[in-house]
Amino acid sequence: MPISPPSRLLLGPGPSNVHPRVLAAMAEPLVGHLDPFFLSLMDEVQDGLRSLFGTTNAMTLPLSATGSAGMEACLANLLEPGDEAVIGVAGVFGGRMCEVAGRIGARVTRVETEMGTALDPDAMRDAIVRARPKVVAFVHAETSTGVLQPVEDIASAARENGALVVLDCVTSLGGLPVELDAWGIDAAYSGTQKCLSCPPGLSPVSFSDRAIARVAERSHPVQSWFMDVSLLAGYYGGERAYHHTAPISAIYGLAEGLRLVHDEGMPARVDRHTEAQQALLAGLAPLGFEPLVDAAVRLPPLTTLRLPDTVGRVGEADVRRRLLDDHGIEVGGGLGKLAGQIWRIGLMGHNARAASVERLREALDGVLAGS
Amino acid sequence: MPISPPSRLLLGPGPSNVHPRVLAAMAEPLVGHLDPFFLSLMDEVQDGLRSLFGTTNAMTLPLSATGSAGMEACLANLLEPGDEAVIGVAGVFGGRMCEVAGRIGARVTRVETEMGTALDPDAMRDAIVRARPKVVAFVHAETSTGVLQPVEDIASAARENGALVVLDCVTSLGGLPVELDAWGIDAAYSGTQKCLSCPPGLSPVSFSDRAIARVAERSHPVQSWFMDVSLLAGYYGGERAYHHTAPISAIYGLAEGLRLVHDEGMPARVDRHTEAQQALLAGLAPLGFEPLVDAAVRLPPLTTLRLPDTVGRVGEADVRRRLLDDHGIEVGGGLGKLAGQIWRIGLMGHNARAASVERLREALDGVLAGS
Repeated sequence: MPISPPSRLLLGPGPSNVHPRVLAAMAEPLVGHLDPFFLSLMDEVQDGLRSLFGTTNAMTLPLSATGSAGMEACLANLLEPGDEAVIGVAGVFGGRMCEVAGRIGARVTRVETEMGTALDPDAMRDAIVRARPKVVAFVHAETSTGVLQPVEDIASAARENGALVVLDCVTSLGGLPVELDAWGIDAAYSGTQKCLSCPPGLSPVSFSDRAIARVAERSHPVQSWFMDVSLLAGYYGGERAYHHTAPISAIYGLAEGLRLVHDEGMPARVDRHTEAQQALLAGLAPLGFEPLVDAAVRLPPLTTLRLPDTVGRVGEADVRRRLLDDHGIEVGGGLGKLAGQIWRIGLMGHNARAASVERLREALDGVLAGS
Repeated sequence: MPISPPSRLLLGPGPSNVHPRVLAAMAEPLVGHLDPFFLSLMDEVQDGLRSLFGTTNAMTLPLSATGSAGMEACLANLLEPGDEAVIGVAGVFGGRMCEVAGRIGARVTRVETEMGTALDPDAMRDAIVRARPKVVAFVHAETSTGVLQPVEDIASAARENGALVVLDCVTSLGGLPVELDAWGIDAAYSGTQKCLSCPPGLSPVSFSDRAIARVAERSHPVQSWFMDVSLLAGYYGGERAYHHTAPISAIYGLAEGLRLVHDEGMPARVDRHTEAQQALLAGLAPLGFEPLVDAAVRLPPLTTLRLPDTVGRVGEADVRRRLLDDHGIEVGGGLGKLAGQIWRIGLMGHNARAASVERLREALDGVLAGS
């Protein structure tokens, strides 16, 4: 029997539903990873990613692993043991950056903010001035809290003090404007399973020339052969020399996803994500759901909502389970300190439309009325 | 316009053609990575991989990255800086193991053999006795030469001397018998794009309890957060706690590929690969292609052939290019010292059948006759 997954509307923090054209692309027959067709498609994908990332960086590519590997690739290339790093922690994924950097041997200064709030650029600047770090890293769109972080102020403080800047764009790329070059970002990573409407499995990454120069000056090679950007350059930098076998079908899917973004245009896409969030807030307010995050720093693709008593009485995990089992709708629970207190509702990529909100609203009415 | 790849018969060293049922599975709609359906499918995939690897290892899982990352995951978990490692080098992929282990900080003793021959178990044993390594690593089926390596003799020597054994099964898993438990292997990795007829993108790996115990005794955490098997255990070890987002569509494909292997049965599948190689040798002998490797250690899924003068006169790269452009057939050139001297012809998974050989034979007749 062939596998036959149930139909789901994926409104959690990711993965989101994959666009039907992307699914169809992944079912196209394979070609070799050095086939002229594939090399030309890789050129297209790299160009498409440069456009989305807002960069001319030559080393912009889909890393052959998930977003977490993209985080590690950025930090592992730019940090050596003993290097200072200042990391902004506004939630679980900023915290993960600290753990990854610590394993590399970096001396990490952690600048925290309360979950649900944005990093304080002044606190970041103070830490940067004190620590004189090699790298400053933080998350653009914190998936654990739904908060948009002040990129430009922090990036300026970092560059004025000679640090390279690493930015997590997992939940922003393809749903929000990303402007690596204008912002002065040196390394960024994302995932395909959020606003790009592709499956998880690839991590778009981008390294500035400044970052590549820093890698060339390392005293020791990057510990990871798989993630070493100077080795990846052999394939993705133009020469197309074999390094590892690229995940061809996943890249078909990403190519198709990028064509969809290009056809829609980023301005329209950003508007669509913003309008979907407005519809969500308006639709669930009458049920008593309240946004966790101030409007000024609210992240359109991922909304965090405090739960009404009606949900608390049933038990929030039970309500989520019934949404899934009875209505085929997935929403996300809280992570870390926010577990049990909030839901994380993603309206990302293809799902960022009023119809998603209507289905959720109807299902919630049913679940809460029946209890 | 949706992407539309050309039709290819992939007879290189991998990727091989993906089975149509696997392609169809990857186009199934996404569910969440913590969805009950997906968790149950993951159980099935892990069971299927245990069966193929010939192991009861709990930590048997599809790593969310390509085969090269599987190599690194095995070595990075089991080696700490300063540890001794003995590595058998019978081709490019054994050489890559040395580079990966060296970056981790291991002191590597390299035991080489001429490309196209098998490792000498006595030479491996001597090196093991001298170096008293923590880890002995080598390749089961060397993809750069088409040679099957003497696993059991080397593994015995390693275990008698207290070393853990790491085995590369990239080109063997699903095409040849693999018996990790019977052979005494502690960590093994593979890829999905060879004998499993799935696309590249996942690396099936397996760690013995002895390997997991060694990881628990490390003085320093594994540098890679993404590859640390003690963290992966949270998701793949039973608890299904979030570590990273699994590449869901690729795992649909792998699940389908494993069902196909199960339906056929490994003995029949091994026979099919062996018979396909016989057909290849018989079919190309009249054209002057001669096997590089002695029959006793010849690897059925991947055959290396010395080239006849007729190919040399046209130029081997030109002949390959014409096979691809005019006939849609990909074969592989030589790697390393064998570049320009041999071809590598894969008859792997779904492609391991006489019909593949017939198409290649006809196309070659055409290309060589026309020149």
